[in-house]
Amino acid sequence: MALFSKPIKTLDDLFVHTLQDMYYAENQIVKALPNMIDKAHDSELKQAFQMHLRETENHVRRLEEVFTAINEPVKGVACDAMNGIISEAKDIMSDVADHEVLDAAMLSASQAVEHYEITRYGTLIALARQLGRTGVIGPLKRNLEEEKAADMKLTAIAESRVNRKAAA
Amino acid sequence: MALFSKPIKTLDDLFVHTLQDMYYAENQIVKALPNMIDKAHDSELKQAFQMHLRETENHVRRLEEVFTAINEPVKGVACDAMNGIISEAKDIMSDVADHEVLDAAMLSASQAVEHYEITRYGTLIALARQLGRTGVIGPLKRNLEEEKAADMKLTAIAESRVNRKAAA
Repeated sequence: MALFSKPIKTLDDLFVHTLQDMYYAENQIVKALPNMIDKAHDSELKQAFQMHLRETENHVRRLEEVFTAINEPVKGVACDAMNGIISEAKDIMSDVADHEVLDAAMLSASQAVEHYEITRYGTLIALARQLGRTGVIGPLKRNLEEEKAADMKLTAIAESRVNRKAAA
Repeated sequence: MALFSKPIKTLDDLFVHTLQDMYYAENQIVKALPNMIDKAHDSELKQAFQMHLRETENHVRRLEEVFTAINEPVKGVACDAMNGIISEAKDIMSDVADHEVLDAAMLSASQAVEHYEITRYGTLIALARQLGRTGVIGPLKRNLEEEKAADMKLTAIAESRVNRKAAA
């Protein structure tokens, strides 16, 4: 946990901490995607990243609604996991010269991000249910469904186009 | 990418790098699980971690088979993403005093680990297919299926027991 963040004593603290973790993560993705859009060579991949940037901006707004609904200040906590995923992706991206291989590496990295978000939203929804915070399940579920759809789209692109071209 | 690791120029390099990343990740999980088994309060969660430790030891062995099959030395590369997930889990675990909340936090952390592995095995299998490395798909798929089953088991535990108790 980040220095100065509130100690986790209750399930509610864990919910708020996970929410702050996701708020930080979604904001990091908003920062990382423009570079990935810029570097993507495959037009379908570029479009998928562009669409996901718009979705991710909405995810940030929905998380802000959740903070408001539970009377907590809108705040992120640095998330080692997301930082690790993004720093690994940046390292690999800076190493790869070949366009097609770079696309495959970015696909792999972005799917790792999607899966991280899928698991965290799953946790948040499970915790919200247990805590009786039913009013916040809607926006969390919408974010979860969009992350799942983004992951499926990336899988389809990976399987159908980019990797096949890179192996040619 | 880790210092001194081979630059990624081809799709094959990306496959080998991702394999090394997973080898490091699985070994980190073998190291982390005994502490989680020790700290788990819920007996079903403890058993799930114990079973997954044995499975993870097998995953390490299957990855070693894959290295051998493709004539690459068995080697891990430090994986920022997995290090981030594990360091975040350790921080949260050290913060939480309440047994039930600790179980919920460990469940959340271990599901983040499972999802990271699910996405990386998905990438490895897709890359192996594109590269025509059909001989290594079997062991990678067995690992993937066990990670998915572990994640489903953890979800079932989360939904049915630990979180409900923690909220009580």
